[in-house]
Amino acid sequence: MPPNETIISFSGKTDLDLLFELLRFPSVSTKADHAPHMLACAQWLQALLRESGFETEVCVTGGHPAILARGPHVPGRPTVLIYGHYDVQPAEPLHLWTSPPFEPALRNKRVFARGSTDNKGQILAHILGARHLLREEGTLPVNLIFLIEGEEETGSTHLDDFIRARRNDLRCDVIAISDTGMVAEGYPTLTQSLRGIAAMEVFLRGPVTDLHSGIFGGAVVNPAAALVKILAALHDPRGRVAVPGFYDDVENIPAAEREMLAALPVTEADYQRETGVLLLDGEEGYSSLERIGIRPTAEINGLTSGYQGEGTKTVLPSTASAKLTFRLVPKQKPDRVLNLVEIHLQNLLPPGVEMEIVRGHGGMPYVLDLKSPWCGAAQRALEQTFGRKPALMREGGSIPIVQKFRDLLGSDTLLLGLAAPDCKAHAPDENFPVESFEAGIRLHQHLLRELAAPV
Amino acid sequence: MPPNETIISFSGKTDLDLLFELLRFPSVSTKADHAPHMLACAQWLQALLRESGFETEVCVTGGHPAILARGPHVPGRPTVLIYGHYDVQPAEPLHLWTSPPFEPALRNKRVFARGSTDNKGQILAHILGARHLLREEGTLPVNLIFLIEGEEETGSTHLDDFIRARRNDLRCDVIAISDTGMVAEGYPTLTQSLRGIAAMEVFLRGPVTDLHSGIFGGAVVNPAAALVKILAALHDPRGRVAVPGFYDDVENIPAAEREMLAALPVTEADYQRETGVLLLDGEEGYSSLERIGIRPTAEINGLTSGYQGEGTKTVLPSTASAKLTFRLVPKQKPDRVLNLVEIHLQNLLPPGVEMEIVRGHGGMPYVLDLKSPWCGAAQRALEQTFGRKPALMREGGSIPIVQKFRDLLGSDTLLLGLAAPDCKAHAPDENFPVESFEAGIRLHQHLLRELAAPV
Repeated sequence: MPPNETIISFSGKTDLDLLFELLRFPSVSTKADHAPHMLACAQWLQALLRESGFETEVCVTGGHPAILARGPHVPGRPTVLIYGHYDVQPAEPLHLWTSPPFEPALRNKRVFARGSTDNKGQILAHILGARHLLREEGTLPVNLIFLIEGEEETGSTHLDDFIRARRNDLRCDVIAISDTGMVAEGYPTLTQSLRGIAAMEVFLRGPVTDLHSGIFGGAVVNPAAALVKILAALHDPRGRVAVPGFYDDVENIPAAEREMLAALPVTEADYQRETGVLLLDGEEGYSSLERIGIRPTAEINGLTSGYQGEGTKTVLPSTASAKLTFRLVPKQKPDRVLNLVEIHLQNLLPPGVEMEIVRGHGGMPYVLDLKSPWCGAAQRALEQTFGRKPALMREGGSIPIVQKFRDLLGSDTLLLGLAAPDCKAHAPDENFPVESFEAGIRLHQHLLRELAAPV
Repeated sequence: MPPNETIISFSGKTDLDLLFELLRFPSVSTKADHAPHMLACAQWLQALLRESGFETEVCVTGGHPAILARGPHVPGRPTVLIYGHYDVQPAEPLHLWTSPPFEPALRNKRVFARGSTDNKGQILAHILGARHLLREEGTLPVNLIFLIEGEEETGSTHLDDFIRARRNDLRCDVIAISDTGMVAEGYPTLTQSLRGIAAMEVFLRGPVTDLHSGIFGGAVVNPAAALVKILAALHDPRGRVAVPGFYDDVENIPAAEREMLAALPVTEADYQRETGVLLLDGEEGYSSLERIGIRPTAEINGLTSGYQGEGTKTVLPSTASAKLTFRLVPKQKPDRVLNLVEIHLQNLLPPGVEMEIVRGHGGMPYVLDLKSPWCGAAQRALEQTFGRKPALMREGGSIPIVQKFRDLLGSDTLLLGLAAPDCKAHAPDENFPVESFEAGIRLHQHLLRELAAPV
């Protein structure tokens, strides 16, 4: 279905106007009924890229469509692929947003909206950087490809198949992504590693229906009690993940690297302020930066059981469930981790309760080769944009696609994130500083020029 | 506000018609926006009692109204108070009902509706028993008072004050309540004891907002993980409540009484069939009947944290909460139990998480004096109605009002329950056998005659 370009017009609009327009699409990929919004958002991006001078295509996948765009052919120059995503996390809980998540609002020189940082603001900065170059110079310093998908927040389920099918169109020398964080707002940052991820949902079932907790309580195992029992065993008293075998593949980080991390301009007080907790805590023997950057985790993302409404309801619930994700570090494998967790939980399950586990998406951890010429080019571009040498960061988040690119296209990925520490990605009041948006546009231009002749 | 009797008519309606009418009121006391339904239900009951020959009053309380009704004065006869409630539990989860909870349906000679057993069907049987006696004989064998409240399911919050204020109008020799279970359907049962109850809700707060579980996971204590940790410590591996001091006031039950319980026509297989669990389990060393009747419990009634929608959302939740109730046996006191639990949970709370506890309703446990003449009368009435000697049961549920009656009016309460073991009170598909409804009408008549001259 081609976009209806007669009703999408970009003329006379500022960069910020375009950002606001893009943020208004409620492109929540995990919700099946949002598919029409996903398509409309993809068509808007296609129209913008086409009008900017790219050959474009909204590509059918097994799930939400992907946008593929190719700039003018520049003989003898490297091919650079910029990857991003137009899908966003659900906006719930809605009542905690200061302004509605899909009605972008400008406050304190920041744009507040779901997706403002993750990832619409950052991918749009790249598109607009290229758009301005093409307008001003009529061509680009490199052969440029944009790949913008719609399933990043749900594990990029169909992107493997898509990349395999379109491998010839995606062949490139290097990939760049802006979907990671800066160590401090405006402090240029090259991300050196990413954690992997493995997701599962645990469902427990006890009695066939909710029971009266007086009439039956004491004689029937309560699935909510069983759930808290098995989940409490995810961690030991030292804050380590207590699943047997979980750390088997985890490598120790050399002292030199830990010292470099400790020298980054990120303090425990920063984390405390950003998260609003009274006290940080986690695995014994590591700093917060290490707990996030170089150590794996087991996290409960959601708990559901019994009565959740107003007041008391004296039920013994029939079911209880939890959503879990595990963040993984280099050498850990998602499938193996989920196997170990499943065995661990099954071993702890009390009698009278049945367990079903539904596995979610998985993504391998990633480490970048700092010695490559592309890394040098990226660091120079960052320095030119922000006027200082970039920090080398180990990021706690997961971008499974980075490992897939290496496996399927053989190309390395440069992670030049623009997310501020307090951007609230995935949470209410997600926001993106206007300065970061403008810096992203400049960064794209410096990056293409540096990658045109890497040293 | 007097009921609009011009639009409430009972003429030509069968007993079952009247039951269906009463069940159509969605009188859920815990939901603030259901107050108009509560009032309409109270007015309907008042109109029925008035038309049957009672002096009636819909009484203002600090919460939902109570109905007070008094039959004709019969000099020289005892005064009997029948207590019941017209409020019901919430009907959620709605999708698990075969037919809508407030549209009563007759299937397999049972009436399916929220409140059919608990307590509308049972209190209406008493009202109709008296209504028929008054129609046929013009008077009653005793001085009869009905007290029907609207806050039983939320802990009878305002009934203490009401009873104190109206003590003269409520003075009676004995009280009868049908709000307990039968050991088997149609097997007459006099309940000898009830468990007490103590309710609380536990709220944990960590970061000020939901965080990205990749960007911060590992360095910030997850309130959901803290919640499962502290709740897992509610029980020890032997199925006992692990709160220090919890069993201090619990009395041992003599062997003779445990033998009598073992002889009741209730088997482990019955419980298994009724609850649909593969395996019953609970405190070591006790049968199911004992775990329910003579042992206290700690039960999780609800769990809430993080993302509960479709798919995965990689959040580190800001909050986590649980609804808890404790069932208590004679000598345990709700306030003391809640104090002990609060101390226990507070001691286990990890750093970086704050806890708030909101206490719910409490009710003392109750034991009946089997040697009183009223108990003899009740047992004879049960035998006349059902044609066999009644079982003496220890019930797991809680009716806090029974203890309050003893404290405030000095009167004992006879518990002549009509709830079938599979009535699904408080759960989807709650139902009441038509035979139990009809037996309840006859039971009321036998009971008044026996109580008129207790031996």
